[in-house]
Amino acid sequence: MLLSGLSWGSSPCIVAAVAWEAGKPLVIEEVEVAPPQANEVRLKVLYTALCHTDVYFWEAKGQTPVFPRIFGHEAAGIVESVGEGVTGLVPGDHVLPVFTGECKECRHCKSKESNMCDLLRINTDRGVMLNDGQSRFSIKGKPIYHFVGTSTFSEYTVVHVGCLAKINPAAPLDKVCILSCGVSTGLGATLNVAKPAKGSTVAIFGLGAVGLSAAEGARIAGASRIIGVDLNPKRFHEAKKFGVTEFVNPKDYDKPVQEVIADMTNGGVDRSVECTGNINAMISAFECVHDGWGVAVLVGVPNKDDSFKSHPLNFLNERTLKGTFFGNYKPRTDLPEVVEMYMRKELELEKFITHEVTLSDINKAFDYMLNGESLRCIIKME
Amino acid sequence: MLLSGLSWGSSPCIVAAVAWEAGKPLVIEEVEVAPPQANEVRLKVLYTALCHTDVYFWEAKGQTPVFPRIFGHEAAGIVESVGEGVTGLVPGDHVLPVFTGECKECRHCKSKESNMCDLLRINTDRGVMLNDGQSRFSIKGKPIYHFVGTSTFSEYTVVHVGCLAKINPAAPLDKVCILSCGVSTGLGATLNVAKPAKGSTVAIFGLGAVGLSAAEGARIAGASRIIGVDLNPKRFHEAKKFGVTEFVNPKDYDKPVQEVIADMTNGGVDRSVECTGNINAMISAFECVHDGWGVAVLVGVPNKDDSFKSHPLNFLNERTLKGTFFGNYKPRTDLPEVVEMYMRKELELEKFITHEVTLSDINKAFDYMLNGESLRCIIKME
Ligand SMILES: NC(=O)c1ccc[n+]([C@@H]2O[C@H](COP(=O)([O-])OP(=O)(O)OC[C@H]3O[C@@H](n4cnc5c(N)ncnc54)[C@H](O)[C@@H]3O)[C@@H](O)[C@H]2O)c1
Ligand SMILES: NC(=O)c1ccc[n+]([C@@H]2O[C@H](COP(=O)([O-])OP(=O)(O)OC[C@H]3O[C@@H](n4cnc5c(N)ncnc54)[C@H](O)[C@@H]3O)[C@@H](O)[C@H]2O)c1
Ligand SMILES: [Zn+2]
Ligand SMILES: [Zn+2]
Ligand SMILES: [Zn+2]
Ligand SMILES: [Zn+2]
Repeated sequence: MLLSGLSWGSSPCIVAAVAWEAGKPLVIEEVEVAPPQANEVRLKVLYTALCHTDVYFWEAKGQTPVFPRIFGHEAAGIVESVGEGVTGLVPGDHVLPVFTGECKECRHCKSKESNMCDLLRINTDRGVMLNDGQSRFSIKGKPIYHFVGTSTFSEYTVVHVGCLAKINPAAPLDKVCILSCGVSTGLGATLNVAKPAKGSTVAIFGLGAVGLSAAEGARIAGASRIIGVDLNPKRFHEAKKFGVTEFVNPKDYDKPVQEVIADMTNGGVDRSVECTGNINAMISAFECVHDGWGVAVLVGVPNKDDSFKSHPLNFLNERTLKGTFFGNYKPRTDLPEVVEMYMRKELELEKFITHEVTLSDINKAFDYMLNGESLRCIIKME
Repeated sequence: MLLSGLSWGSSPCIVAAVAWEAGKPLVIEEVEVAPPQANEVRLKVLYTALCHTDVYFWEAKGQTPVFPRIFGHEAAGIVESVGEGVTGLVPGDHVLPVFTGECKECRHCKSKESNMCDLLRINTDRGVMLNDGQSRFSIKGKPIYHFVGTSTFSEYTVVHVGCLAKINPAAPLDKVCILSCGVSTGLGATLNVAKPAKGSTVAIFGLGAVGLSAAEGARIAGASRIIGVDLNPKRFHEAKKFGVTEFVNPKDYDKPVQEVIADMTNGGVDRSVECTGNINAMISAFECVHDGWGVAVLVGVPNKDDSFKSHPLNFLNERTLKGTFFGNYKPRTDLPEVVEMYMRKELELEKFITHEVTLSDINKAFDYMLNGESLRCIIKME
């Protein structure tokens, strides 16, 4: 089979951006990609984007360092070949790889409520495939490790079939690639978990890509007020495009931001979504919802030693606190429909895409994110 | 109008159990009860029961002491007379007085989700009526204070119309009186808030009257396993009558009870309901629910300085924590239907009633509760 001018042997050489060491620029290398084994799929990545999670594990400040590694998990591609036992996907299918999977057989996959598949749940420490505990990437026989089962900073990658959502082939891959992580996470946190009723008030903590997607969800749900909270005042200008109607910078007030919001809203918002990863923002997001009916949703990934603390009376006064992982979307079952929301123009994706580079310039995408300039930078693979 | 042999003037003398001082036995006294003012109802109490909340405020160890006071809030009675503007109730109606009310006009009353009426929400510090800021009880002109708007340890009492649920006159008042606080609280915590699906696993922390009512709710909902958790092993024998299938005493294990429960249930229960008031039990009740779908509900009233603490990842892994007040029942709208559940024999009340005394022996009811002998002791007024 011929794809993109390469003559495929069993382990063809392709180009990928390899992270050799924590915090050091990625290096474009020729890498061999082994064929897919049982329940695996090899795909050609066309577009990928950079997400904070890539940056965190590349910096590896608190996380287990696993190097050399190929990062990347927000992407869109086309199936090149499938391994034994793969059903439902054939070469040529358009797919979104996802860092968390759906085996369709475990208790979580069978539950209507959960998307935390026992088999394919995110594992940031594992750098190998489940089938044989080995990597499919190598340079001159030396393994290069995987990242969250996706490793999309590579022209070709191998992914477990349970981590691939088959989508409408008419969908533009350079746009819908961002649905494979951050945007779906924020959108789903609002639409699937916070579930604001039409006309309700919603506070969004953190106006990065995830928070702005949560705001987009609130806009779609018909919220009457969307209050954006961020420590960085630069974020507000952009946030207006996402339907954020008011902006609160906790630094501008002497009192806790939950009290500021309660004053603005006659006792608290109906819903809040925390997208910062900061423990104080998590507590404020909970305490700023109205008693009687308020629901707060945590999305941000906390530090290891963080502790969520609040007086139990805040719960007894009929507030609800929930957390979500990937916006409660089941990747294979639900993502195709999120792509359709975009196709029907209910969901806007263009406004998230602030930059574009080619794979050879991937380190620029890291700079844009580290400088806080970008929401999403698309990396074109060819 | 003649009732129970008393000739009613405007402020007739009746008999009530008065708490003169914190922690001292109640004294049966002749008390004058003023007529109901605007939006108030005077009722003849036929049966009342003792609840822990009476005992807490009578002990007044942490709470604001308000004395002399007439305690009592679990009761059933008959309307004697109504004040100006009262609609929907006439003399002779059978009612349950409730410590929290429903004005039907505020945002909470208009919300489908909340029962925390802005006007009539419980206020344990207030010893007077809302209408004129005065007490309706007096002895020789000296005011005797109200308790949570009900003060049912009295042959007659005056209650805001918003705190009275009109019930089926065929319902036996010596049984349904216990629906006016503890039993509805536990039952509603399970049925209205935790909402276990048929076949699910439920953990109940604290097997007092509230916890056993929560277990009764789990039985009614068709839970497959009901795990009772208490530090007091004596509670288990009784708990079997309430459908509790397994018993865990945290003192019997070296590891935290949430881990014991996770081991028993392949990762955690589907639902938990905390009915202890102990902060450690609240944390365990949250952490023992299964990731992906588990819901924990707090019912127990904590101490002032307690802090709920848990790692935010426990939320992110898709657990939900809620609290409830009076089991989320709206007193006037929902209690009549809970009485009907009893009338249809779906709900059993007899098993909660372990003791009965007359008003003159009311201090015995305090002893039974303080010794942990009783679940509910009914106090017959005549
Ligand atoms: N649960 C999931 O499945 C999932 C998936 C993807 C990302 N995430 C997490 O979501 C969070 C947001 O991701 P992002 O890509 O949008 O990040 P980002 O860094 O672009 O945005 C975070 C924003 O939060 C603001 N912020 C930080 N502390 C704050 C505080 N105390 N109060 C108010 N604002 C504060 C920052 O100024 C920034 O604008 C991260 O923690 C990320 O790890 C979670
Ligand atoms: N939210 C509401 O609307 C509402 C209404 C009524 C009562 N309550 C509260 O509900 C709680 C229970 O009321 P009750 O009348 O059943 O009380 P109770 O004292 O009869 O029962 C409490 C039980 O909890 C057990 N317990 C205490 N600490 C424990 C721990 N760490 N682990 C396991 N078990 C523990 C005790 O041994 C006891 O059996 C109280 O806090 C009460 O104030 C709340
Ligand atoms: Zn699964
Ligand atoms: Zn991501
Ligand atoms: Zn009200
Ligand atoms: Zn009570």
